[in-house]
Amino acid sequence: MSELRKHYFLDEYCIIAAERGMRPSDFLSGPEISGMAECAFCGGNEDKTPPATAVYRNGKVLKDTDGERVKDWQIRCFPNLYPALSPDAAGITVSEVVKGGWQVREGYGFHEVIVETPSHAKRLPDLTDDETGLLMHAYRDRVVYYSSQRGIVYVSLFKNSGKSAGASLEHTHSQLIALPVQPFILRQELGVITQHDECPYCTIARTECESPRLVIRTRNWVAFTPFSSRFPFEVWVMPFDHIPDLVACPEMVIRSLGIILRDVIRGYGQLLGDMAYNYMFFQGPGPYHLNLRIQPVLTTIAGFEKNTGIFINTIVPEQAASDLRTVVGIE
Amino acid sequence: MSELRKHYFLDEYCIIAAERGMRPSDFLSGPEISGMAECAFCGGNEDKTPPATAVYRNGKVLKDTDGERVKDWQIRCFPNLYPALSPDAAGITVSEVVKGGWQVREGYGFHEVIVETPSHAKRLPDLTDDETGLLMHAYRDRVVYYSSQRGIVYVSLFKNSGKSAGASLEHTHSQLIALPVQPFILRQELGVITQHDECPYCTIARTECESPRLVIRTRNWVAFTPFSSRFPFEVWVMPFDHIPDLVACPEMVIRSLGIILRDVIRGYGQLLGDMAYNYMFFQGPGPYHLNLRIQPVLTTIAGFEKNTGIFINTIVPEQAASDLRTVVGIE
Repeated sequence: MSELRKHYFLDEYCIIAAERGMRPSDFLSGPEISGMAECAFCGGNEDKTPPATAVYRNGKVLKDTDGERVKDWQIRCFPNLYPALSPDAAGITVSEVVKGGWQVREGYGFHEVIVETPSHAKRLPDLTDDETGLLMHAYRDRVVYYSSQRGIVYVSLFKNSGKSAGASLEHTHSQLIALPVQPFILRQELGVITQHDECPYCTIARTECESPRLVIRTRNWVAFTPFSSRFPFEVWVMPFDHIPDLVACPEMVIRSLGIILRDVIRGYGQLLGDMAYNYMFFQGPGPYHLNLRIQPVLTTIAGFEKNTGIFINTIVPEQAASDLRTVVGIE
Repeated sequence: MSELRKHYFLDEYCIIAAERGMRPSDFLSGPEISGMAECAFCGGNEDKTPPATAVYRNGKVLKDTDGERVKDWQIRCFPNLYPALSPDAAGITVSEVVKGGWQVREGYGFHEVIVETPSHAKRLPDLTDDETGLLMHAYRDRVVYYSSQRGIVYVSLFKNSGKSAGASLEHTHSQLIALPVQPFILRQELGVITQHDECPYCTIARTECESPRLVIRTRNWVAFTPFSSRFPFEVWVMPFDHIPDLVACPEMVIRSLGIILRDVIRGYGQLLGDMAYNYMFFQGPGPYHLNLRIQPVLTTIAGFEKNTGIFINTIVPEQAASDLRTVVGIE
């Protein structure tokens, strides 16, 4: 059972997940990225994972049972075999205890894997418009589902692609971790946002769609390299409309997000070759403004960044945007 | 010339350092770690770096001139050839300008390399008590020097060891970046600390020296695995006395910090083999309490961490401390 341990005096948590646990020597080799032969995420190998919680097949959403696994799917969601948090842990109200004077609670929550395609050979940039549309639909579905679970206050939805981005398996997939605490960085943003007369993200969307940092503009979305980009070629995508989270995002609007996301990652591939990347949905309650951040992993978060929270970025965002516009076909 | 760009609406900065600049294709191979033959940090190759700002030799502190380089040194400090910030930039008062509505200032500051030994073959764990003592002495000296420079409000002192910790050169060295802005994370801590009657770090030092997380205790210092460790085998070292920064740290006290630091890193080597690590000094004005954080790089900062600021740690801090106590010779 994992634990959510609170910082000594800040309102921040970390997850101590010992059951994923390793001995010191386990770190020496690093995680294995397994090949296709025994890949639990491949179509046909459904019995190698826990029963699926949601399987997207030909316009329907199905579920595995212990006895039978749904086959021939397009997208498949199931509990992570090594969960950071677990619904079996006691809920938030009863588990707050004290260990040596410091605060800890049991690691209640959910940790799900979303496999984006049954094909081991496919990557996100290979998906069709319909396939990326379905993926966004599934993302929204799963966030809706977990947001409504008892004691869940934040749903983290993200993708790690490539070993240096934290992916331990090669088959393309996303992850969702539903948390019983609000992340400090979200609370920090909300605190500032509520002090503004207008949502700052609304202003950002309107301004950046006409700036030299623009990458893609559609009717509902703008993709751009943020003014103070922390990472080379970082891209943010946000709706023009003030939509706080995926739950509030209309079906027709979210479909085009998938195409933008895929096209940006295709653009990375053309510019940067086969590089690792993360993307994360930032979302929150009412005052917040949904945004997706896509970050190639080209540099290392080193001592200076860990000491100061200030990131050194060697690519000027305006140049990154110009390079990306060239390959995504706008210029 | 680099820029300090402010976040759209948060009080955070990043450094856009384009003159270290790369084209997209430069990222494909990754940084080179050069061997001994042409290492600019080796004794004898002093002319391959900018003139040294401080050279520690037989109890004296010397300086290079353009014409002559000091040889036969123990520790050598010189400006980084690819500085993130530069003293040639305009100072903070005149450079605040606005770019497309967002805030940016010229990248004023200092970026120094501290080479810990002239020997390419030596690593920090190989240093003697006297050598680590001299290193702490030099650290303190350089922080004193840069703290007093016009417009400097924070001095970041850190070490990246190993490629996955962000080191681009193999020869063991530390770095110092003197900043014209206070890091947000320091301001955040100070905000909470000043609300307490007693310094929370004073309480932590007193509590952890008798907890199962203790690693090393000396007369003036305690080293322990923090209760909410973000990283496996993370160790914090702090003085029992309320000392805000290295500047205020007495010479006799700082000497023993070097021995603790070296012994912890020796312990890592015994437990974890030849792994990468960072360490960073956290220091600040009066209410702050100096602390050094040592973090092995065994895991990846992935999408979940980037989305939430919540770190998943697979090693229980109490177990990490017990393992470390065994090898540093306390148990």
